[in-house]
Amino acid sequence: MALTYELIKECKQSGARLGKIHTSRGIIETPIFMPVGTQATVKTMAPEELKEIKSQIILSNTYHLYLRPGHHLIEKAGGLHKFMNWDKPILTDSGGFQVFSLGDLRKISEEGVEFRSHLDGSKHFISPEKAVEIQNALGSDIMMVFDECAPYPADTSYVKSSLERTTRWAKRCKEAHKNTETQNLFGIIQGGMYADLRKQSAEELIELDFPGYALGGLSVGEPKPLMYEVLETTTPLMPKNKPRYLMGVGSPDALIEGVIRGIDMFDCVLPTRIARNGTAMTSHGKVVIKNAKYTENFEGLDLECSCYTCKNYSKAYLRHLFKANEVLGLRLLSYHNLYFLLKLMEEIREAIKKDRLLDYRKNFFEKYGYEV
Amino acid sequence: MALTYELIKECKQSGARLGKIHTSRGIIETPIFMPVGTQATVKTMAPEELKEIKSQIILSNTYHLYLRPGHHLIEKAGGLHKFMNWDKPILTDSGGFQVFSLGDLRKISEEGVEFRSHLDGSKHFISPEKAVEIQNALGSDIMMVFDECAPYPADTSYVKSSLERTTRWAKRCKEAHKNTETQNLFGIIQGGMYADLRKQSAEELIELDFPGYALGGLSVGEPKPLMYEVLETTTPLMPKNKPRYLMGVGSPDALIEGVIRGIDMFDCVLPTRIARNGTAMTSHGKVVIKNAKYTENFEGLDLECSCYTCKNYSKAYLRHLFKANEVLGLRLLSYHNLYFLLKLMEEIREAIKKDRLLDYRKNFFEKYGYEV
Repeated sequence: MALTYELIKECKQSGARLGKIHTSRGIIETPIFMPVGTQATVKTMAPEELKEIKSQIILSNTYHLYLRPGHHLIEKAGGLHKFMNWDKPILTDSGGFQVFSLGDLRKISEEGVEFRSHLDGSKHFISPEKAVEIQNALGSDIMMVFDECAPYPADTSYVKSSLERTTRWAKRCKEAHKNTETQNLFGIIQGGMYADLRKQSAEELIELDFPGYALGGLSVGEPKPLMYEVLETTTPLMPKNKPRYLMGVGSPDALIEGVIRGIDMFDCVLPTRIARNGTAMTSHGKVVIKNAKYTENFEGLDLECSCYTCKNYSKAYLRHLFKANEVLGLRLLSYHNLYFLLKLMEEIREAIKKDRLLDYRKNFFEKYGYEV
Repeated sequence: MALTYELIKECKQSGARLGKIHTSRGIIETPIFMPVGTQATVKTMAPEELKEIKSQIILSNTYHLYLRPGHHLIEKAGGLHKFMNWDKPILTDSGGFQVFSLGDLRKISEEGVEFRSHLDGSKHFISPEKAVEIQNALGSDIMMVFDECAPYPADTSYVKSSLERTTRWAKRCKEAHKNTETQNLFGIIQGGMYADLRKQSAEELIELDFPGYALGGLSVGEPKPLMYEVLETTTPLMPKNKPRYLMGVGSPDALIEGVIRGIDMFDCVLPTRIARNGTAMTSHGKVVIKNAKYTENFEGLDLECSCYTCKNYSKAYLRHLFKANEVLGLRLLSYHNLYFLLKLMEEIREAIKKDRLLDYRKNFFEKYGYEV
């Protein structure tokens, strides 16, 4: 079954949308944050724990899985869902972002991108067709087209020619896509920080009629207000009857601001990455757990949070686990941070329902502290 | 409530005993293996998972907790159980073994042991009184006397004077012990590989009337048959109405052989340590999961095991997790290895019940492969 987006209601206070994405592996209530499982595992977490904290969909990574363990192996295993023991929807990115992040290790041509593996230096070539072939083998529910994520800053002419290639690649991806009945290929709107180029990209891709659209090339180093400006000019150009996905965004403030500007889906390694560094997101802002001031703090991490970590462990214990390099510390903070973001999205959905998302933002920021 | 040992039955095929240790935190069915949580966490595992695999009691480490986070901090936190979120019994060793393992970093005198921390080189002194004070602060259900674990090999005169000091220290520990109502102090029989010295140590300690007795100074590098010989001559000297604990033993073959010779309790870091190195204990022997032959092996780790890991993941996936340095791999193998040993102990108890432990050993070894 192809994916469909059901718009339930629009917030009267903002551009936010409450919706449902219907997939063959269940319904995704939007707006939603998607935990990232780069290498076929959301770092430190078991699938049951992801369900416990109400993850509706997770993301995995084409570039990483292509290199290790290889998409053919995962196909033989019965697909990515079976391989990693996750029966809810999976979104795979196209590998474009990772390949372009390789810098000197890659060479772009019209045909695709030649690059060297970050693991062993071996030479590889990913074309739009190859990116689709890999994702078809993985069997993800939502696939992404192979795009070029232009750097920030980049001048107009570069961004323009880059987005036009992204459009040509999107067409090739669409043509190469084999499992249209079971897998849904999303387009990625590029165009850097230029409103007119975003418009051009959106129009060209909408023409290709993808079942959903992402915004790429944002959260790549630009100031947040600039990202919000791009969202404000671009989301109104995106189809109302299809999901809108802002790639690589996961800070609480940017999630709220993104939703306010009409975004339905987000993903980011931020919550799990900072967790492994010992930083927790809490209702009163960030907590750096190794800080000496928590040595004898026997209270929970976030007194307003009712997650497993906050109900059962003190800051002093969590600090001890991090000081002693114990894996349980990584687990407990990853669990909490993901819970925190998924709970935030749940509260955002509730606020949209009640047409009070701007009030919610105000209350949230007063406690959390705004981060631009 | 002081701990009591209830002897349920003796195996007609061997010296094995089926029993129950009654503690204020519940009943422990023996023979039992105790997972080790050195730094107030059984590495990679959450307490709920330890319960899921039926851990009845876990072990923690006086030396490590004294250095980090400090026993005073744990006392302020409400004791070790509350600190680490574990409400079943905890056994703490005395720190003796760790301190003696420091080699050049420690200096033994009649008063106690002066040593330098392995963490920061700071100077410390642990006396029998101090070891008890620390364990009283931790609030463990079973405490161990501060003993000297003589190395292997060691000559008779050294071992004799060492065990005699251990007896003197045991007396001092008993006198220093403050919470006799809620915490139970076990004696540790030393004497190296010398039957007459083991006898001397056993007699001296039995005289002191501890609620349980351990055998220390075994599994320290001697051949396994020699350890079994020591067990054969020593366990008959130990009280029948008290638990017998063989310290630091956790290989499947040694657990079975130990039980056959009358041991009730075991602990070892082996199952979790080898798990983190990618080695699983299975009913057909050890599996080194990174081995290339498992690359496309889509079967479970151990087809005869019904643990969470074996039910849900393939060898190929576990191998991928280890190759990709993913924490979930450490978790899944630790979970399996502990499950494997706890299940082994359950089967051993069942075999004692049916007076067929020697038959069980034969069947087990035929599949597992004997390791001397």
